[in-house]
Amino acid sequence: MVKIVVDMMGGDNGAKPTIAAVSKFIKDHDDVSIIAVGDEKVLEPLKDKVKIIPSTTVAPMECSVMQAMRDKESSVYKAVNACLSEDADAVLSAGSTGAFLSLCTLIIKKIDGVDRPALITQFPTKVKGKYCVLLDVGASSENSPSELAQFAKIGEAYYQAFYEKKDPNVYLICNGTEEGKGNTLSKETYALLKNEKNFKGYMEARDVLSGSADVVVFDGFTGNVFLKGSEGMAKMMGGLMKEAFTSSFRSKLGYLFARKGMKGMLETMNYKRVGGALLVGVNKVAVKAHGNADEESFYGSLNVAYTSAKKQTVKKIKENLKL
Amino acid sequence: MVKIVVDMMGGDNGAKPTIAAVSKFIKDHDDVSIIAVGDEKVLEPLKDKVKIIPSTTVAPMECSVMQAMRDKESSVYKAVNACLSEDADAVLSAGSTGAFLSLCTLIIKKIDGVDRPALITQFPTKVKGKYCVLLDVGASSENSPSELAQFAKIGEAYYQAFYEKKDPNVYLICNGTEEGKGNTLSKETYALLKNEKNFKGYMEARDVLSGSADVVVFDGFTGNVFLKGSEGMAKMMGGLMKEAFTSSFRSKLGYLFARKGMKGMLETMNYKRVGGALLVGVNKVAVKAHGNADEESFYGSLNVAYTSAKKQTVKKIKENLKL
Repeated sequence: MVKIVVDMMGGDNGAKPTIAAVSKFIKDHDDVSIIAVGDEKVLEPLKDKVKIIPSTTVAPMECSVMQAMRDKESSVYKAVNACLSEDADAVLSAGSTGAFLSLCTLIIKKIDGVDRPALITQFPTKVKGKYCVLLDVGASSENSPSELAQFAKIGEAYYQAFYEKKDPNVYLICNGTEEGKGNTLSKETYALLKNEKNFKGYMEARDVLSGSADVVVFDGFTGNVFLKGSEGMAKMMGGLMKEAFTSSFRSKLGYLFARKGMKGMLETMNYKRVGGALLVGVNKVAVKAHGNADEESFYGSLNVAYTSAKKQTVKKIKENLKL
Repeated sequence: MVKIVVDMMGGDNGAKPTIAAVSKFIKDHDDVSIIAVGDEKVLEPLKDKVKIIPSTTVAPMECSVMQAMRDKESSVYKAVNACLSEDADAVLSAGSTGAFLSLCTLIIKKIDGVDRPALITQFPTKVKGKYCVLLDVGASSENSPSELAQFAKIGEAYYQAFYEKKDPNVYLICNGTEEGKGNTLSKETYALLKNEKNFKGYMEARDVLSGSADVVVFDGFTGNVFLKGSEGMAKMMGGLMKEAFTSSFRSKLGYLFARKGMKGMLETMNYKRVGGALLVGVNKVAVKAHGNADEESFYGSLNVAYTSAKKQTVKKIKENLKL
């Protein structure tokens, strides 16, 4: 049984999409048990299917760490706390990233020996069905070379466990591929990683999508800029495409004919299916769903939590850090 | 008259696209004079239309600064040199970025008071016809807060001159928008820029495309990752779209109907029309065309060189740095 605690209230869209996603998820999986945290009245439709932990407040999206720690009645606080007290495998929230990450770090705590937890995300590539994992995409604002070297180890272990590949390729993001390139941080990190078996060197941002890398390591600042920049571009092109297809009767007709091909494309680019990012380096699976997650996206996040727990990513990360 | 020196040989595709682009450009503009640098025999078709400076070698794409400085017969060396000796307004090359940037810095020299020149590029946004300029997108691998503050001044002046807008908005890239966000570099730069009239604060990567910013300042490492990441995403989506439209007879038919709308979209995303990046902070207009530029793209670069020279961007940058 995989036990997942879910903050049902934290997202921009309230409990409607989370209730729908949880209902569907437990129908689709017979080896999962959900603990739903939120307003008891609102969660009424779930009461015969899952354990409910009542909470009375919701931490705001722009929430300071202090605020998040102080409001012990909030759904996110209670969810993170319950992950420990109920001995669950995973916790999931679509609430404030800052609040969720701090609560997970402070309550669930870092794995022994980990300096900084990182946000890891699965990123689509040109190769159909192939994702690469990127970390850190924003848990930190600044990292040291030894933290980046640790991210490489954590990412490697995560990929090994999640995708069941023995020797994933690990790259370090850079502004060029030759050894002498990069800033002080890249150069010092390169020196630390150089003799690691699966480390393959620098990778330029344009090649992340090529599908050749399994793991790409970023400092949190650069990873955040890369991820948001690429997502922004994908979204803008999607929007322009939609516009193009709805600009006239002719173009709408065109869409009808091209629909099948376009669906394949949109499927590849569907961030919703992946649904959020994980905080890795803490003692439980901790998944941050998109703040504006709808049912499909939240279901995707549940799936990331479920699969990560089932494949024992936390245990594998612990083992790899000892090597 | 705008005088532009062109390295005809440096790009991946040799002189064919550059000859075609130059021929078209001088036909389209009666106030431009071109000095073409390259193999005399190859440039034969241009001999009655432009001044030709013969060169015998081509600097390789992966070319060290030392190599670039030593080979005084290369088309890029001779072009940069001629920009000074012929008192031209601008120089253009599709050759090795490293070689071109170093030669421009060493021969044409930095504007008095400039610590580091920067690569600036025009980036499309959601708003039709609106570009924002980004700098530095890769001239440096690492920058100090005072260099970033200077980039803000240079970008502001460039935008003022090129787009004729009196008070362009200037933003600093960051992983969040509130004042306390960012890494040490962002925080220290923020403090330097805080009281500048046109500085509007931090901008997240996802908002660069929104069209609200005129100028966005990056350190060279992050700018390079942002630009290559976004371009990679745009290219991948373009490729997937092409695939979608050619996957079946039905989808090809669909394209015929949707073509007009799609063209509008592709027009917005057409990096070729913008064609490359400028090195700003040196005493001439220095344009680096894409290494794999075709005729359309190289024409776009000629246009950037021509317009930047005509609008006296170098003079405006000098003036703004004195304020």
